[in-house]
Amino acid sequence: MSWLPIAPESHFSIANIPFGIISTPADAAPRPAVAIGDHVLDLKAFAAGGGFAASPDIEKHAAVFSAATLNDLAALGRPFHRALREYLQAVLSADTKNPELLRDNESLRRRALLPRAEVQNHLPMAIGDYTDFYAGKNHAYNVGVLFRGPANALQPNYLHLPVAYHGRASSVVVSGTPIHRPWGQILKDPKAEPKVPVLATAEKLDLELEMGMFICRENKMGSPIPIHEADEYVFGYVLMNDWSARDLQAWDISPWVVLADALRDAKSPGIPNDTPLLPYLQEKVKDNVLSIELEVDLKTANGNTTTISRTNSKNLLWSWPQMIAHHTISGCNLRPGDLFGSGTISGEDSTSQGSILEQTQGGKISLQLQGGEERKFLQDGDTLVIRGWAGKKGALVGFGEVSGKILPAHPLF
Amino acid sequence: MSWLPIAPESHFSIANIPFGIISTPADAAPRPAVAIGDHVLDLKAFAAGGGFAASPDIEKHAAVFSAATLNDLAALGRPFHRALREYLQAVLSADTKNPELLRDNESLRRRALLPRAEVQNHLPMAIGDYTDFYAGKNHAYNVGVLFRGPANALQPNYLHLPVAYHGRASSVVVSGTPIHRPWGQILKDPKAEPKVPVLATAEKLDLELEMGMFICRENKMGSPIPIHEADEYVFGYVLMNDWSARDLQAWDISPWVVLADALRDAKSPGIPNDTPLLPYLQEKVKDNVLSIELEVDLKTANGNTTTISRTNSKNLLWSWPQMIAHHTISGCNLRPGDLFGSGTISGEDSTSQGSILEQTQGGKISLQLQGGEERKFLQDGDTLVIRGWAGKKGALVGFGEVSGKILPAHPLF
Repeated sequence: MSWLPIAPESHFSIANIPFGIISTPADAAPRPAVAIGDHVLDLKAFAAGGGFAASPDIEKHAAVFSAATLNDLAALGRPFHRALREYLQAVLSADTKNPELLRDNESLRRRALLPRAEVQNHLPMAIGDYTDFYAGKNHAYNVGVLFRGPANALQPNYLHLPVAYHGRASSVVVSGTPIHRPWGQILKDPKAEPKVPVLATAEKLDLELEMGMFICRENKMGSPIPIHEADEYVFGYVLMNDWSARDLQAWDISPWVVLADALRDAKSPGIPNDTPLLPYLQEKVKDNVLSIELEVDLKTANGNTTTISRTNSKNLLWSWPQMIAHHTISGCNLRPGDLFGSGTISGEDSTSQGSILEQTQGGKISLQLQGGEERKFLQDGDTLVIRGWAGKKGALVGFGEVSGKILPAHPLF
Repeated sequence: MSWLPIAPESHFSIANIPFGIISTPADAAPRPAVAIGDHVLDLKAFAAGGGFAASPDIEKHAAVFSAATLNDLAALGRPFHRALREYLQAVLSADTKNPELLRDNESLRRRALLPRAEVQNHLPMAIGDYTDFYAGKNHAYNVGVLFRGPANALQPNYLHLPVAYHGRASSVVVSGTPIHRPWGQILKDPKAEPKVPVLATAEKLDLELEMGMFICRENKMGSPIPIHEADEYVFGYVLMNDWSARDLQAWDISPWVVLADALRDAKSPGIPNDTPLLPYLQEKVKDNVLSIELEVDLKTANGNTTTISRTNSKNLLWSWPQMIAHHTISGCNLRPGDLFGSGTISGEDSTSQGSILEQTQGGKISLQLQGGEERKFLQDGDTLVIRGWAGKKGALVGFGEVSGKILPAHPLF
């Protein structure tokens, strides 16, 4: 319980304490904050006002609270994140031992504790590299059936290692950023000869529901990370919408990074895998896949909102430590700020699938929306909202939401 | 001609003025410099010593000369790079109008003009995203023949657009950084059933000779760059060795970025393409492919050095402006510090091919080296050196070299 009033349904209970980057009309410089109920605690203002006076170990690193990204904070490592989160929980707790730091310090409260609705969120990390895995086995199977039929739906290596491809860091944007429909070369009639492409806007624009994970620690190029040490490389998690079209992928992420510690107990078995794994992918810890309740809303330009999917992030074949161990086994180096995507998360039926491609069987059937509207793919003016949370009312550990709108294609020169 | 003695065969003539990041035993902070003959001019020391006093337009941006990367300098744009290069050429010129700035300023010369052999080079840019194109048509054809036979050597889209894939920014290292042989999952016997992978070190380790290009200007997501404006986005060029193995790619780059202006006239027709191109890929400027003489040396652990390839960067199907126009046509945003690779550059016969894969026809024949040694792929202890230059003796515009050594695989945990 906090001395600050927090609604029981808030994603940002005192059990959470997620980190983000904010700016305000009064101070345009982006800086770290944590979300707490309907407020944020501006860590730059809190540190400047002596908020960390009760912990010399945190105060000596106070420079990270003035940075424009969370990279330096992340690079201080898991023990520091843990100490910092516990310190802030103690300060915000109803039975705080140091009420003079914030609760009874009206001047600092006014400067550092800001209404969340009045701050602007920025991308929380400067992303070095972004790797998008493909660990959603149900999704991989469904898409494989559409393209190759049920007999060859999964590629031969799929159960042996976490397949991934390399995404573009510049295309990751924070929730609220609208996305223009992209242009690209296509074949109008793929069967015509000779094959002459034309320039056209993408028709099959889709969402993909994913979780994201930020790396906090560097390994040297050439030095793989053993799977039992992989947890020490996890800073925290975000929700992610992978806008997908033929020629463009852009990733919209939620602004508040939920620390690995806050989701320590939100674990579950993933999708079973009977395939014998090579030792470097074998975990001593069982049931190590993150369990987050997930929901996707589609809001049309006409104002109709439909929850088109309800699922859970345990619908993954691989855990984050397995992805880290595989990513580095070749000697590939990771750096603080690197982002991993889980791949699209789909449950087993159409109400729990994480993409419209699956829900409409590749555009064969229509998705029925409120108000009698329907969709085969996304239209200009559609807005997607993804929510995710773990835990129970009063102590929810949630992500808030990630929201983005499709704008028409940019006119060409 | 410079008042500083410069050997006629130096890559770093006064016609060049390439930019890099250096540190020294006396000042460990990485900072910008230009290479000139056997010296570097430390731009931080030069700026601090009043070296830019004759140009208020440059001096007002002097903060970029204290940065640890060239990103801020690059982001000032092509007109600034041009003015800066011309200013430095004027200061270093035998008939300089401002001898008091450096030539006759012994104290500043001692602090700012350092022997090149005594400085350490660092990666010149903080790389946001790295896109590796595949514009070397001879290479693409040769590799296509090995994997799919001559009839289908080039994929159907190959002549219509510059094919690319997305490389990993963290794996780009500066010349001189050794590379460990990578580990990865392989099938010992690809024909055996069931297919059970094992963990093994890569056997087929190869070099790939490429040019690299750094971006200096941002476009907004959703806004393609018209091809006739693409040149304004080019900061400069480097040489690149794309170390290639089954599971790892690492890119070794030369430390000095040769400005686009310094290679303004080093242009040539590329490989002819009779395919009608969509308007967004059509250039008004003809013969716009960069023409750089290229050489590759292989030095074995026994000390035998063999020049295994001599070729030219005009062996590309696409110009850099075409790559920029295609990369952004979907609305993809570029940022200062983004790196493009050309793809492997191969001439038409084995003495001009840019990879050992091609020279040995996929390991079927051996490459003969000095001292009676031979190679089918690279061995631990092999060192690769790539050199490249344009222009004539006395006014060479060169890249120096990019050099890297293969170390044995890292022992596993």
